[in-house]
Amino acid sequence: MASLRSVSFYAASALKRHPQVVYSSTRSTLFKRNPFQSTRAMTTSAIPTERASEYDRVLRKHKGLNKDLQRMQYAVRGELVLRAQKLTRDLDAGAKLPFSSVTFCNIGNPQSVGQKPISFIRESLAAVVHPALLENDFLAPDVVDRARAFLGTCQSVGAYSESKGIDFVRNRVAKAIEERDGYPSDPESIFLGNGASDAVKAMLQIIIRDSTDGILIPIPQYPLYSATLTALAGQQVDYYLDEDNGWALSIDELKKSLYNAREEGIQVRAIVVINPGNPTGQVLSEENMREIVRFCEAEKLVIMADEVYQKNVYVESKPFISFKKVICDLKSPVELASFHSISKGVIGECGLRGGYVELFNTEQDLNDLVYKVFSVSLCSNVLGQYAIDLMMTPPKEGEESYSVYKRETDDIYNDLKAKAQKLCKGLNTLEGVSCNDSEGAMYLFPQIRLSKKAIETAKQRGYACADVLYCVELLEETGICVVPGSGFGQREGTYHFRTTFLPSREKIDGVVNSMRTFHDQFLRRYS
Amino acid sequence: MASLRSVSFYAASALKRHPQVVYSSTRSTLFKRNPFQSTRAMTTSAIPTERASEYDRVLRKHKGLNKDLQRMQYAVRGELVLRAQKLTRDLDAGAKLPFSSVTFCNIGNPQSVGQKPISFIRESLAAVVHPALLENDFLAPDVVDRARAFLGTCQSVGAYSESKGIDFVRNRVAKAIEERDGYPSDPESIFLGNGASDAVKAMLQIIIRDSTDGILIPIPQYPLYSATLTALAGQQVDYYLDEDNGWALSIDELKKSLYNAREEGIQVRAIVVINPGNPTGQVLSEENMREIVRFCEAEKLVIMADEVYQKNVYVESKPFISFKKVICDLKSPVELASFHSISKGVIGECGLRGGYVELFNTEQDLNDLVYKVFSVSLCSNVLGQYAIDLMMTPPKEGEESYSVYKRETDDIYNDLKAKAQKLCKGLNTLEGVSCNDSEGAMYLFPQIRLSKKAIETAKQRGYACADVLYCVELLEETGICVVPGSGFGQREGTYHFRTTFLPSREKIDGVVNSMRTFHDQFLRRYS
Repeated sequence: MASLRSVSFYAASALKRHPQVVYSSTRSTLFKRNPFQSTRAMTTSAIPTERASEYDRVLRKHKGLNKDLQRMQYAVRGELVLRAQKLTRDLDAGAKLPFSSVTFCNIGNPQSVGQKPISFIRESLAAVVHPALLENDFLAPDVVDRARAFLGTCQSVGAYSESKGIDFVRNRVAKAIEERDGYPSDPESIFLGNGASDAVKAMLQIIIRDSTDGILIPIPQYPLYSATLTALAGQQVDYYLDEDNGWALSIDELKKSLYNAREEGIQVRAIVVINPGNPTGQVLSEENMREIVRFCEAEKLVIMADEVYQKNVYVESKPFISFKKVICDLKSPVELASFHSISKGVIGECGLRGGYVELFNTEQDLNDLVYKVFSVSLCSNVLGQYAIDLMMTPPKEGEESYSVYKRETDDIYNDLKAKAQKLCKGLNTLEGVSCNDSEGAMYLFPQIRLSKKAIETAKQRGYACADVLYCVELLEETGICVVPGSGFGQREGTYHFRTTFLPSREKIDGVVNSMRTFHDQFLRRYS
Repeated sequence: MASLRSVSFYAASALKRHPQVVYSSTRSTLFKRNPFQSTRAMTTSAIPTERASEYDRVLRKHKGLNKDLQRMQYAVRGELVLRAQKLTRDLDAGAKLPFSSVTFCNIGNPQSVGQKPISFIRESLAAVVHPALLENDFLAPDVVDRARAFLGTCQSVGAYSESKGIDFVRNRVAKAIEERDGYPSDPESIFLGNGASDAVKAMLQIIIRDSTDGILIPIPQYPLYSATLTALAGQQVDYYLDEDNGWALSIDELKKSLYNAREEGIQVRAIVVINPGNPTGQVLSEENMREIVRFCEAEKLVIMADEVYQKNVYVESKPFISFKKVICDLKSPVELASFHSISKGVIGECGLRGGYVELFNTEQDLNDLVYKVFSVSLCSNVLGQYAIDLMMTPPKEGEESYSVYKRETDDIYNDLKAKAQKLCKGLNTLEGVSCNDSEGAMYLFPQIRLSKKAIETAKQRGYACADVLYCVELLEETGICVVPGSGFGQREGTYHFRTTFLPSREKIDGVVNSMRTFHDQFLRRYS
C-alpha cells in the first residue's frame, strides 16, 4: 500500500549498476567521424568549445528536469534490457561469451523471437498500403473486398483519420464486441490508439486530478500503470494478488487496501484489473468478476479493465469473460474503460501499434474529454487501426482466406499453450522455485527463494532488490533476459522474475536446461 | 503574454455553440439496435436501470475530471471541424445544402483532399509489410534491396522495436542530417515517435517541472504547444510575430516577453520556434536565426525547433536552414531539440504517424530521461519508422525508383507552390482582407477586418471571438472549413483564419470564388 509520504519499495530504483558491468550507451560506427569531443556528462552530440564547458545547461539532472519523470521506473525496458541489447551487439561483433545468443524473455514481443505474422493480416495491410496490388490477382478476393471497403471510407492510409479512429473500424469493432458479449456496443464510445498504452495513459491522465487521487492497482502489475501514475504524481494504491491461491483477486484484500488508502487521505477513484493477468497469467472466474463489479459499484470506483490478453486463455474451465458482459449481466451502472490491443492474442502485431478503449456507463462529458485528449495527437496510425479491424473481424468460414488463417492461428495458439505448460513444469522442478500455472497471457512469474547470502550480496552491490542479482547473473551467464519481480511489485521478502514463454518450442527446452544449470550454480554460490 | 493569474483570451473556449446549430454527436446506424435508453447526460452506451439514474458517477464534468485537460483547447480538431464532419455525413445522406461537398482546409492533411501518395514510399512499405512480395518481380530492385536491409535489422514490422526507434533508421537519419547541415549527427540523440507530436509532448513534459515554469511560444502558434502546456499546467509565454513585417520574429519582442514573464515570477526555460511557420508560413532568414541562437544562449533558453515544414519552402531567396546548422556555425552550446515529421513535405504521409526529435548539446541525463519516457510506450509504430527512412534517404539518381520518384515529388512541390500563390492572391483581392505570402509550410493566415456589428453579433451568440462567427458562417454557406485565428492566437482586436492551400488547383479556383461571394455577403450582412 502506498501512502502519501512513502514510495513503496519497488517504485524505487529497481536496478542499480552492477559494479563489474559498464552500461555504456551505444555509439554507431557512423558517428565515429564526429570531430566534436564529448565531455563526461554530455552526449557525443555537442559543441566542445570553451564556451560549452562553462555553459550551465538548462536541462540537467535533478533540479533541471521534471521530478516525477525522474522518479518513474519502467523495468520491462530498463537497464537489464539495455545490457542484454549490448550483449547482443557484442556477440554480433564476435565477442566470446558463455552463450551464443541472447534469449529475450523480458517482453511479450512474439515476432521478435520468431513467431511468424499471420498471412491474412499482412496481405490485408499490403493491400491498403499499396492499392496497386488490388489490380492484379495476387491477393485473395475477401482481402481485396475488405481493402476496397476500408479505402472507400478513409481515402488513404496516408491521411489523418478522425481523432478517435476511422468510422469503418469503430463500427465493426462495436459489432464484434456485441457478438462477443451479447450486449450492444456504441462505436462512438470506442477510441483507437497507438496500442492500448495510449488509451491507458489518456484515461489515467483524465482520472488523476491532483496528488491526493489514487488508483487501485494489482501487485504484481504491469509497470505501465505504476510508471504513468508516478509521471502524473498520482497515488498508487496496491492490492496484492494471492500467490498461494493461483494469484486470485480477493475482495477482502481490495477492501483492506481501499479503506487504508482512504484513511491516509487518498481519494481512490478507479481500479485497474488485468485479466488475464500480467505478469501473473491468472484468469478471473465469473463469480470473482461479479464480486469485483458489485464492490466497485458500492465503493464508486471506475473499472479500468486491461483485457489485452483476452485471446490468450489456455484453460477450458475459465473462458475469457469481459467486464462489459458482467456489468451488463448485473445491470450495474459502474463506469468501465476496457482496453484491447493487436500486440497480443495470437496475431502478436506489436510493432504496428494498435489498440482501443471502449467506454461504458460513462457520461458524454467524459467521452468528449477523451476525444479532446486524443485529438491533440491528431489520430493514431491508420495501419494499426486497420489491423484492429482485421483482428476483431477475422475471416469467416467460406471466405477464401479462412482455411490458411485458421491453420496459422491454431498453430500459434497450440504452440503458446504447450510452451506455457512446458516452461512452467520446468521451473517447478528447480530447487526453491514455485510457479503458478499460466492460465492465460504470455508470462510466468515464478517465486524464487533466495539465501541470506544472496540477499546480502545484492545489497552490497547496490541493487534495490535481491531478485535483480538473480536476473543479472542469469543474463550474464546464460544470455536469458528476464525481468526482476521487483519491477512488477511483490510482497516484501518474496522474490520473483517474469519470463515470457514465447521462444520456439525447441528453444524453450534449451531455456529450461540453461536455467537449471544456472540455478544450481547460483544456489551453490550463495549457499 | 500569459500571467500566472490570467489565461490569455484565445486559450479560453474558442468556439461556443451556434444557437441555430445542433452539434449532436454521431450515432452509427449499427447502434440503432441498442435496446438501452440513453439519458441526456449519458452516452448511449450505458445501463438504463433505476439504479443507474441514482448512481453518482465518478467521472463527471468539472470536479470529477482533470481540470487542466478540461481547460485545454485544440481548435484544429475542435467543434467547427466536428460540425464540418456532420455536414459531410448529411450530404452523403442526401441532405440539400448550399454546397455539394465540404472542403476541408482546416488541417494540413494532403491525402485527405486528393494528393496521391508517392509510389516509392508505398511500394517500399508494402515490401516490408508483406515480405512475400520480395519474391516476385513486382517491385523495383532498389525497393527490394532496401526492404531486405531493413528487415535484416528489425526482423519483422510486427515486433516492438527499440524504444527510441530502430538502429537502421536512426543511423540513416543521422547520416541524412549530416548531409543536410554539414555537421555530425549522433543516431543515439535521435528518437523516433508516432509523429513529431509525440516527441514534442515528451520534451514539454520533461521541461515543465511545476506551474511556475514557462515556455516562449510564437503567436500565432500551432495549438499543440498551447494545448500541451495547458495539460501540463505550465505557463505559456507569448511572443508576437510581426504581421506587418511578413510575420518576422523580432528579438526586441522576445526580450520584452521574456523579461515581463520573469518579472511575473515565471521561470522561462525554452522557446518554441516554428520554421517555416505554422500557421503563418514565414521562413526565417539566417541572420534572424543567428540572433535567436545568441539570444537563447545569453538567456539560457532551450530551443525547441519545429522544423516539420523544412521541405515546404516556396521562395528561393530563403532556403531552409536548420537551427542545428546555425548553432554549429556559431559554435554555440545552446540546447536544441529539433522536430521533423513524415506528415508534411511533399510526401504528406500523415496517417502513418512518423516523426523524430534530434537532441543536440544536451546532457546524457536528459537523453536518458527521454529514452525512459519513450520506453513506457514501448516504441512508435515500425511502419512510420520505416517511412522516416524513406523520407530522409529518398532514391538517388541511378536507382530504379529515382525517375518516377523525382517526377511525382516535383509535381506535388510545384503544385503546392502554385496553389499557395493563387490562394494568397485571391484572398488579397477581398475587401478588408490582407494576407502575407506563404513562403513555406501549407497555410495562409489572412487578417480579416470585421465590423462592429459582426463583433457584436459574435458576442451575442456567445462566441469567444468574432472570427468564429466568420468561420461558422463560411462553413454553413460554402462548405469551406477553416480554423478561426483565435485558435492559434492573434493580437487583441485583430481577426484571422487559417486555411490550407491543399485542395487541387481546380478546386482552389472554386474556393476563391466561393470565399469572395461569401465575403461580400458577410460584409453586407454586418455593415
